[in-house]
Amino acid sequence: MEIKNKYVTIKNSINGAPKESDFEIKVENVSLIIESESKDVVVKNLFVSIDPYHINRMKSQSSSQGTISFATAITPGECIDSYGVGRVLFSRRPDFRKGDLVAGLLTWGEYSIVKEGSLLNKLDPNMGFPLSYHLGIFGFSGLSACAGFFEVCKPKPGERVFVSAASGSIGHLVGQYAKLLGCYVVGSVGSQEKVNFLKERLGFDDAFNYKQETDLKLALKRCFPQGIDVYFDNVGGRMLEAAVANMNIFGRVAVCGVISEYTNATTRAAPEMLDIVYKRITIKGFLAADFMNMYAEILSKTVEYVKDGKLKTVEDISQGVESIPSAFIGLFNGENIGKKIVKVADE
Amino acid sequence: MEIKNKYVTIKNSINGAPKESDFEIKVENVSLIIESESKDVVVKNLFVSIDPYHINRMKSQSSSQGTISFATAITPGECIDSYGVGRVLFSRRPDFRKGDLVAGLLTWGEYSIVKEGSLLNKLDPNMGFPLSYHLGIFGFSGLSACAGFFEVCKPKPGERVFVSAASGSIGHLVGQYAKLLGCYVVGSVGSQEKVNFLKERLGFDDAFNYKQETDLKLALKRCFPQGIDVYFDNVGGRMLEAAVANMNIFGRVAVCGVISEYTNATTRAAPEMLDIVYKRITIKGFLAADFMNMYAEILSKTVEYVKDGKLKTVEDISQGVESIPSAFIGLFNGENIGKKIVKVADE
Repeated sequence: MEIKNKYVTIKNSINGAPKESDFEIKVENVSLIIESESKDVVVKNLFVSIDPYHINRMKSQSSSQGTISFATAITPGECIDSYGVGRVLFSRRPDFRKGDLVAGLLTWGEYSIVKEGSLLNKLDPNMGFPLSYHLGIFGFSGLSACAGFFEVCKPKPGERVFVSAASGSIGHLVGQYAKLLGCYVVGSVGSQEKVNFLKERLGFDDAFNYKQETDLKLALKRCFPQGIDVYFDNVGGRMLEAAVANMNIFGRVAVCGVISEYTNATTRAAPEMLDIVYKRITIKGFLAADFMNMYAEILSKTVEYVKDGKLKTVEDISQGVESIPSAFIGLFNGENIGKKIVKVADE
Repeated sequence: MEIKNKYVTIKNSINGAPKESDFEIKVENVSLIIESESKDVVVKNLFVSIDPYHINRMKSQSSSQGTISFATAITPGECIDSYGVGRVLFSRRPDFRKGDLVAGLLTWGEYSIVKEGSLLNKLDPNMGFPLSYHLGIFGFSGLSACAGFFEVCKPKPGERVFVSAASGSIGHLVGQYAKLLGCYVVGSVGSQEKVNFLKERLGFDDAFNYKQETDLKLALKRCFPQGIDVYFDNVGGRMLEAAVANMNIFGRVAVCGVISEYTNATTRAAPEMLDIVYKRITIKGFLAADFMNMYAEILSKTVEYVKDGKLKTVEDISQGVESIPSAFIGLFNGENIGKKIVKVADE
């Protein structure tokens, strides 16, 4: 028995901002009769995650990224793996049965064949939250935000926290975690709508539209007259330089992503190193995957916060496999507010 | 009773590489009759330390440095404070007496008037080492090397350690501490003579002359086929970029100084931030002053190592106050090997 699987792929390597013509929608036949010695699980995709870091896997590869499994190059013409939520259609593994709800490494398509050893976890169908939450606040976005903020930034109540891309999938959560801890929180975003959103809906103390600022250092000086203690960096580039210039002694920068540098290799952050020495600043890159051992604990805390209304999540959901390329391209134009997700099929 | 004090000062702010014409030697009268209500101590300087960081205090000031006491601007025409060793000539403080050997914040001159609250410590005259050691291996150079390497880099035996400016006052000690721990150590320097010195005299596993390399990334790849775990950075700039490109996952960079950027504001390190994220690299600035609480412990360990011949120090000593400007200028031309010191007077 075969089904047709519609999926998104790239036609070529992408070095720069992605555009529609870089992508194509392909259809392949997927057999549901899997050889009995395999341990494959066939999943019908329901929601898939759309994340900026994928662009780094679409480039002509160089340097170190090739050594990290989830940063390996995407081959033009082939399926693109991505975190997602789906329902098991067929399983050769005893721990997964037809009908199970799962989250794991699926694909930008209608169906995924998940190999043994690949990330796949059963979801509790009675958890009482939208399934899409497992891609964001209960998934890697939440883990990145919570572990990155608490474990990498080591914040203290009362400290002054700056978050860039603050209305994005991770940023909007970091700001709220920081408020819950009792910090002063300012976010940078790319529109007035997002500024209002952070201040009025998510409780940020302040926010600014970086596109309206001629001097980012002065913008941060205005927002942080007493300096920045913690910077949760999602963008890199000029904003990182401006943040370092405004940091207090023993300031900490957690580098979660550098979206301003993903599509423009000439925009490289060159922070003032003398500030880094004199102010004893720490800049630390991290990946959510390093904190998997804390995932259960973080998830349980996060679920409680959401239940109690202390933490809000925001999702930006497009419909259908065909919308994946534009959803992805939109990330680099700042089109989304909150976690970008594509709903592939109804449950 | 008055004495004449010859001292070095700057004629103007210095923005760029220092040159002889930026400095002048002045003479002032110093009274040895100090008002009885003061707590001044008059010290005859014997050795003074010559350090690259002074150049940052000689610039037209901007940004953050002004907030840090030992980074405050040096005023043209006035005495320049500097770590030094001397002998007490006159004291209004009960804890210092005429004839005491002291180390502390003296001046680039023949005599220093040390105010109450300023750094001043008595030295043991029977310690059995050259007095100049208190400016280097037993002073801030040793503290920077030892605390910076062990506390900031958190090295493990067997790790691969890269040190830049490796024949300098701090670098030549860092490499030896790393060897004592059981690390693989490579240093970068600016001449073949220094390369030979590190390998033949100090036990570095390898060293290279960065001036002979057309591509620093390739040079480091050649020296570290298995990647760099720890980078002790004394130079910043392109070398920091090349080190980050060659780092292993969870690599650590301790930024002790950035001499390549001190005299050239256009040479700013712009490391690949994506490497910092994917390889979870930590870049951390530090100052020896933050580790004063460990000084006694570090000193005692270092003295033992020197006594046992396990740790060698190298000094480059010029003679007389008049030699201070050229000694200082020489730091930026790589003229010194080891700790640069000026001997102001015989004991």
